[in-house]
Amino acid sequence: MADTGITTRLTRRLGLTHPILSAPMAVAAGGALAAAVTRAGGLGLIGGGYGDAGWIEAERAAAGNETTGIGFITWRLEGRAELLEQALAHKPAALMLSFGDPAPYAPLVLAAGVPLIAQVQTLRDARHAADSGADIIVAQGAEAGGHGETRATMTLVPEVADMLAREHPQTLLLAAGGIADGRGLAAALMLGADGVLVGSRLWASAEALVPEGLHRAALAAGGDDTLRSSVPDIARGLDWPDRYDIRTLRNAYTERWARDPQGQRAAGPAEADRYTSAASTGDATIAPAVVGEATGLIHDIRPAAQIIADMAQQAAGLLSGGWRRDEDV
Amino acid sequence: MADTGITTRLTRRLGLTHPILSAPMAVAAGGALAAAVTRAGGLGLIGGGYGDAGWIEAERAAAGNETTGIGFITWRLEGRAELLEQALAHKPAALMLSFGDPAPYAPLVLAAGVPLIAQVQTLRDARHAADSGADIIVAQGAEAGGHGETRATMTLVPEVADMLAREHPQTLLLAAGGIADGRGLAAALMLGADGVLVGSRLWASAEALVPEGLHRAALAAGGDDTLRSSVPDIARGLDWPDRYDIRTLRNAYTERWARDPQGQRAAGPAEADRYTSAASTGDATIAPAVVGEATGLIHDIRPAAQIIADMAQQAAGLLSGGWRRDEDV
Ligand SMILES: Cc1cc2nc3c(=O)[nH]c(=O)nc-3n(C[C@H](O)[C@H](O)[C@H](O)COP(=O)(O)O)c2cc1C
Ligand SMILES: Cc1cc2nc3c(=O)[nH]c(=O)nc-3n(C[C@H](O)[C@H](O)[C@H](O)COP(=O)(O)O)c2cc1C
Repeated sequence: MADTGITTRLTRRLGLTHPILSAPMAVAAGGALAAAVTRAGGLGLIGGGYGDAGWIEAERAAAGNETTGIGFITWRLEGRAELLEQALAHKPAALMLSFGDPAPYAPLVLAAGVPLIAQVQTLRDARHAADSGADIIVAQGAEAGGHGETRATMTLVPEVADMLAREHPQTLLLAAGGIADGRGLAAALMLGADGVLVGSRLWASAEALVPEGLHRAALAAGGDDTLRSSVPDIARGLDWPDRYDIRTLRNAYTERWARDPQGQRAAGPAEADRYTSAASTGDATIAPAVVGEATGLIHDIRPAAQIIADMAQQAAGLLSGGWRRDEDV
Repeated sequence: MADTGITTRLTRRLGLTHPILSAPMAVAAGGALAAAVTRAGGLGLIGGGYGDAGWIEAERAAAGNETTGIGFITWRLEGRAELLEQALAHKPAALMLSFGDPAPYAPLVLAAGVPLIAQVQTLRDARHAADSGADIIVAQGAEAGGHGETRATMTLVPEVADMLAREHPQTLLLAAGGIADGRGLAAALMLGADGVLVGSRLWASAEALVPEGLHRAALAAGGDDTLRSSVPDIARGLDWPDRYDIRTLRNAYTERWARDPQGQRAAGPAEADRYTSAASTGDATIAPAVVGEATGLIHDIRPAAQIIADMAQQAAGLLSGGWRRDEDV
């Protein structure tokens, strides 16, 4: 892995070659993906997700000797702080919390000497997370794959950057949502981020734990073909707080239910089972791939190491003047 | 106005100093704003909007000798092509169409030798606009102020850039939505744009035709305080196609009706009048300011010339290495 020269506060603090973290994607981001990202010079985060202790242990083991971090869905930690203790016992390179209030858990993480990453969707939550002691804020835009809210990366990142510069100048900032190549990485740095957190592009990697049918559907789709809805959460019986919905591809199942959550709930277990079994076999006509608008920028499934290297190299080229179009020079 | 050195295909083709166009904002973007933007080295577009021929003539006259362009809301041109002819008679520097199919009007514009700008909200519409002969595509993200759809600037711009590179390499691309300072301009160039179209930030200028109360409300608001809805369109009795809604600040009026369009329609003319008279007097507690998420990046009302100069200068600084944070170097 070549040092392509993008050093930022993030690469210095965490000792990385590239200012790129992989998102702790529930189910998809296991030990193999996280280890591959770290090996490539970024930092890989295992998707602790909803908190299956056995899965987490197995995936941490699968990462072998490679340093990794881990992420949890915050609201699922309620009454289960032992999950955090289990994770901290592995001395992760960072612990990320997203979707809920990180304040109750921050002291435990910080006391363990582990950098705390808080992913947020609003300026208000960014301030609260920084006030609560987070070392790194991830400003996540609505274009992101997976759960999120409505604000866009393009405005949330600079607005959070301004707030941090005034109130918490030592706190680092990552951009997430829509970043799938070197253009996105370079743009994020221009907006004031110290680095990026990448989900969809690494979901579409050889190491991600994703059924082939879902990968295939994402490759065939463009950014126009996604939507935010609560369809997958209702189908899976997950009690997500109202403010969060989830971006996936559109398919017949989401078209049927996205505007009729009552109907979907009333449709009962058979309709839900249809979803969950399709998700496990990778039948994208029923269970949509969980990817963001960046799906339109993804044209292959490749090893994570190549994805990271290309992203860093393309960004470095852009940052040293490569943004000029041929006709410009 | 100093040449801060950001030359792109756009500045060369249109003969500009800075790759910045002002958005043709209905009502707000009159001749004074457009002329100021052109004088500052960008290109100012008059907001032809819904097509009030008298207003357009007066504002074109108010621009004096300065070169300007003009923009129309496409679906409002149906059966009123004479509006286009009237505009083309002034030999505008560019004519912009947004919100509807530009194909029926493209031949008239192109035959007049006037560059055609088409603002789009999806990849699909970008391709159609380029196929229809548009010289410049504006990829508008949902973070934008005013009407729009759901896709984000961060992913729509590079996806459209890739499509144009393959299918229409001569067609230029501008980014719109969330761009309010040099960070946004620099980010847009990284994403593959040849320049930017700026709305909200120039709405918040001394030259914009905006009641003071609305300016004041926008300065007090952050990016978390906006929403997309159909509330203003229902209040104004405007028959916008379903796919478009409009981003404004949140206020008591939008909170009351945003999730109840039926109720708003049923509430009748008194409730609608309350809105329209507040809009003209600038009572932001009833008629919300029409601005985008970028409102969180706007902290003053300044002359457009200063806004343009600062944006260009900040972007030039970032592009020549200024994106590195102090601690990095
Ligand atoms: C398949 C998938 C699963 C995700 N699961 C989680 C999760 O369990 N916890 C979390 O914090 N974020 C999750 N996310 C969101 C990411 O943390 C990140 O914000 C997002 O992927 C960034 O946008 P992008 O997909 O455009 O790169 C997930 C994203 C995807 C695509
Ligand atoms: C007050 C206001 C009025 C607008 N009116 C129009 C319009 O009449 N026609 C149009 O094409 N776009 C209109 N827009 C959208 C702009 O063309 C542009 O896409 C948008 O302002 C860019 O996002 P930004 O506001 O974040 O800069 C308007 C935007 C604002 C803020």
